[in-house]
Amino acid sequence: MIRAYAAMSAGETLKLFEYKAQPPKPNEVCIKVESCGICHSDISAIDNSWGASKYPMVAGHEVIGEIINIGSNVSLHNIGDRVGLGWHSGYCNTCEHCNAGDHNFCSSTNKTVFSQYGGFAEQVSADEVSVIPIPKGLNYKDSSPLLCGGITVFTPMIEFNITKKHKVGVIGIGGLGHLALKFYKALGCHVTAFTNSEDKDSLLKSLGADEIISSTDKSQIKSLGAQFDLIISTVNVKLDWNLFLSTIQPRGRLHFVGAVLDPIESSVFSLMSGRKSISGSPVGSPKNIKKMLDFCSKHKIYPMVEHFKFDQINDAIKKLKNNKIRFRAVLSW
Amino acid sequence: MIRAYAAMSAGETLKLFEYKAQPPKPNEVCIKVESCGICHSDISAIDNSWGASKYPMVAGHEVIGEIINIGSNVSLHNIGDRVGLGWHSGYCNTCEHCNAGDHNFCSSTNKTVFSQYGGFAEQVSADEVSVIPIPKGLNYKDSSPLLCGGITVFTPMIEFNITKKHKVGVIGIGGLGHLALKFYKALGCHVTAFTNSEDKDSLLKSLGADEIISSTDKSQIKSLGAQFDLIISTVNVKLDWNLFLSTIQPRGRLHFVGAVLDPIESSVFSLMSGRKSISGSPVGSPKNIKKMLDFCSKHKIYPMVEHFKFDQINDAIKKLKNNKIRFRAVLSW
Repeated sequence: MIRAYAAMSAGETLKLFEYKAQPPKPNEVCIKVESCGICHSDISAIDNSWGASKYPMVAGHEVIGEIINIGSNVSLHNIGDRVGLGWHSGYCNTCEHCNAGDHNFCSSTNKTVFSQYGGFAEQVSADEVSVIPIPKGLNYKDSSPLLCGGITVFTPMIEFNITKKHKVGVIGIGGLGHLALKFYKALGCHVTAFTNSEDKDSLLKSLGADEIISSTDKSQIKSLGAQFDLIISTVNVKLDWNLFLSTIQPRGRLHFVGAVLDPIESSVFSLMSGRKSISGSPVGSPKNIKKMLDFCSKHKIYPMVEHFKFDQINDAIKKLKNNKIRFRAVLSW
Repeated sequence: MIRAYAAMSAGETLKLFEYKAQPPKPNEVCIKVESCGICHSDISAIDNSWGASKYPMVAGHEVIGEIINIGSNVSLHNIGDRVGLGWHSGYCNTCEHCNAGDHNFCSSTNKTVFSQYGGFAEQVSADEVSVIPIPKGLNYKDSSPLLCGGITVFTPMIEFNITKKHKVGVIGIGGLGHLALKFYKALGCHVTAFTNSEDKDSLLKSLGADEIISSTDKSQIKSLGAQFDLIISTVNVKLDWNLFLSTIQPRGRLHFVGAVLDPIESSVFSLMSGRKSISGSPVGSPKNIKKMLDFCSKHKIYPMVEHFKFDQINDAIKKLKNNKIRFRAVLSW
């Protein structure tokens, strides 16, 4: 039997839950969970905020662990390998997007949380393609949040060919945003943090922020002028998006990785005046997760986390809901 | 004295108006107007829809004509040259955008209509940089609408590296849209026209449409699936933009060149699911206007127009307002 923490219905406190281990399918690996981050999407899954949850719900999709069993066709991994698993636990591996290395655009993905029992457990299984080796140099004990939060803010760097010559803004400095500061600073960009938190400036500067701006101070934002090539929004609340568009320079973009439920309202004139874009992206492909892990290993980047034992999972979730985690909770057995 | 047609106050019928010719400034050329298209922006200028009009308002910014006088520093043109003039009649020529060839992003432009007396006149003056030679092979008598309507839909082709492998949709088949059909078809793209007009399919097919879809038939649009790399919206009314986003394939974009006053409302999930973009662009740079004119000359592309004499200008405007022009009115003396 595999121990896990599950919600038995929407919004419930998680309870210890056991389910029977299955032998891996031919292309599956079975991972012994060493650590698992708690992402806001896990809360959404537990609370059924998106209407797609099934119960018992075992959430958790930022996993680092050791492969303890492999299916008969597995060729990419071996028992004993340390690997990471994120939002997707499998792809069709045959569509045009998978063939192009864009597995995250595949329309037939399995989701670690929604398609199966996830990572708030002793073990989790996944298709071998969705599982990424952890490089030797990586601080793996703190790094499970890279597998979802990290890749979500790393992907725009790759997609939009961001280099050190670009000016980048990050709206919302939490689980995703603090990693964005680290990534884009390590790349050599000028990085501006937009935040409404009361964290000391010194903390955000130590994470990589060259400038810190209140995300709700309209006159301060307006005074920035059109300077940013890329602003990444990680928040899930509605802000004055046209105001942020006014700080984007020609051919720049305001890019959403945070799941705002309110529609984005933008003025066509704001977009037209400087050939600006509004866009969004979902997590990332296996090849980009690998790129990110190598980047983190090279630049000694790892998430700033608070560690909890799995039996403290409800405390960790409560603290996360109260916005008291700096910046990601990581669970281990 | 130069004869022109001017509105003396917002929304008025245009009247014959005379103003004194000035000698050209050192970098200016003076163009004898051979033809001038009527763009919806001219109506907006006459009616003060954007709150920026000054009266007497001489609109008109799709000009083809012959240079009849040049300033002392002009080096790009000679008296007798046939040239085109569009939305911008001058740039600062020194900012980073001008230096990069992106004059249309310059924040100190002169506008042919809003900064001076425009092209509904016997003559119009402009800075030499904003004036583009008309290639010999171009059907210049019908081509003045290329200078604004044309470049507005040609610019996305350049900006987004569109090639024949891409699938392009065009929303709204009017002055801009019919040129978009011609351009993207000539490039070799698969082109879909979204229209709510009652034009015969055969006309739109002759312009370049491979498929014709009603822009208000939601179920037909939904059934298209995610197929387009680029959809260009030329309309100035609100449509169901999330529905159109659902027809965009990963990394594609919904691009606005029509001045919709209602904010664009888009779902973040629609953007995120396939790394999609919403964007807009303004007219185009001199170098891209030149590219467009060469492209039109090479591919024998010219606008489908109705010709009017300048003394019929109010009739032409009335017909335009009633959506009865196929597809652009062109004035000549």
